[in-house]
Amino acid sequence: MSDQLRVGPGFVLADVDPDSTPDFDGDKKSGEAELAAGAAELADLQEKLYAESLYGGTRRLLLVLQGMDTSGKGGIVGHVVGQVNPQGVRAVGFKAPTDEEKKHDFLWRVRSQVPPPGYIGVFDRSHYEDVLIHRVRGLSAPEAIEERYGLIAEFESQLVAAGATIVKVMLHIGPEEQRERLAARLERPEKHWKYNPGDVDERLLWPAYQEAYQVAVTRTSTTDAPWFVVPANRKWYARLAVHRLMLAALRDMHLEWPQPDYDVEAEKARLAAS
Amino acid sequence: MSDQLRVGPGFVLADVDPDSTPDFDGDKKSGEAELAAGAAELADLQEKLYAESLYGGTRRLLLVLQGMDTSGKGGIVGHVVGQVNPQGVRAVGFKAPTDEEKKHDFLWRVRSQVPPPGYIGVFDRSHYEDVLIHRVRGLSAPEAIEERYGLIAEFESQLVAAGATIVKVMLHIGPEEQRERLAARLERPEKHWKYNPGDVDERLLWPAYQEAYQVAVTRTSTTDAPWFVVPANRKWYARLAVHRLMLAALRDMHLEWPQPDYDVEAEKARLAAS
Repeated sequence: MSDQLRVGPGFVLADVDPDSTPDFDGDKKSGEAELAAGAAELADLQEKLYAESLYGGTRRLLLVLQGMDTSGKGGIVGHVVGQVNPQGVRAVGFKAPTDEEKKHDFLWRVRSQVPPPGYIGVFDRSHYEDVLIHRVRGLSAPEAIEERYGLIAEFESQLVAAGATIVKVMLHIGPEEQRERLAARLERPEKHWKYNPGDVDERLLWPAYQEAYQVAVTRTSTTDAPWFVVPANRKWYARLAVHRLMLAALRDMHLEWPQPDYDVEAEKARLAAS
Repeated sequence: MSDQLRVGPGFVLADVDPDSTPDFDGDKKSGEAELAAGAAELADLQEKLYAESLYGGTRRLLLVLQGMDTSGKGGIVGHVVGQVNPQGVRAVGFKAPTDEEKKHDFLWRVRSQVPPPGYIGVFDRSHYEDVLIHRVRGLSAPEAIEERYGLIAEFESQLVAAGATIVKVMLHIGPEEQRERLAARLERPEKHWKYNPGDVDERLLWPAYQEAYQVAVTRTSTTDAPWFVVPANRKWYARLAVHRLMLAALRDMHLEWPQPDYDVEAEKARLAAS
């Protein structure tokens, strides 16, 4: 699957059908079944990652989630990341920067939230906002934004050198789907809090956002930290796809339970005598 | 349930049977069924708590978990706290303090991890280690430890005044159960990393730890931040009990979905036109 979703040379966002389900032939039911069936392995791999860190390992997984409003970022955190013990998860949502955060360079607040060794970190929005909304709304000078693509790649390379595996996901929905999801939020009182009048303001800039995403993902999809564009009009598919990406990333680490640094038989004897 | 588990006047830890299942008549199967059935409500309440914080609310929930090694703290985080979206959870494990942490007062590292409004925070071990292992092993002077009970109560009152509901849980296992659990860790290679020779060293001090817990829970079980001693020889019961305590704490907040601060009908029209 990852090859089909990965942003490589010649990638064109406009060619990705948000309704499609690349590399999956089944229906919603079979997709949900695969997701549920994979929960135990994902949890197990996370535990191995954590165990390794207790023995000095530095590896960790960072999942970066981006997407237009209602694209399902929160649902991914709940239904996919939620498959592992929350003790091993650091999920962070990045909103508009605070005054304090604005005083620092744009990577400052992100740096402080990088997951420690052994953890799965999730960024719900990220440093990419600084080349997305900033580009669309002109919140920074063009030259500053231009410089950021390189700074981001450099930053991410440093993380990888420090033991991180980075999986960057753009949840890709279509404008009609977004209208329906926003409308649903307005219909149901228990969803009103999820709606924000600003969502429509951003929505009116849809083409500009698509352009900004096109530039961002093509310029920052590196071998170290690739982008995956996940069609997300079908929530069940997007969840399955991210689940598979996380599984693949963790499997690629070839994680093993650490060898004990104590004498197991001697400890059995001490324990029995205690 | 909470009344039976709550530490009140005259509480004696030695009188609590770790095999017992207070306020629950069913067996393991029915306990697990109740736990599973309550997941949706717990997740829903957490979401309401978070929604409230977006509208200026300051309320949050802090679950403090203490207990001897193998008492099941990690399992509580996975199976109970794991019922809610990890995006709304801040789970922190406190280990032996680092050199940096030792430079500050004992509450310093804990203060920085207090959950923000809208979140459920979990402390796996906590500032109570400073009156538990410190008392048992004489890591601090008796007068310093004596002072800490008051400092803790004061600190927790401040948190409550700032909007926190604090639920403190001691998972109470017996020494034979612990021997079996530690032995299981030594038997299975995938559990070796969870074992530490120091666990037996602590185990040899069992009576002193029970005494330290007796003092700690009786001196710091306040109306603001009560202690609950949960019999934990049966993992399924301990998980159900903590689940119920969290549910009760959240229900007591009488959380409501926030009223929107925008005109719903006007937004529907704007959205339709977009």
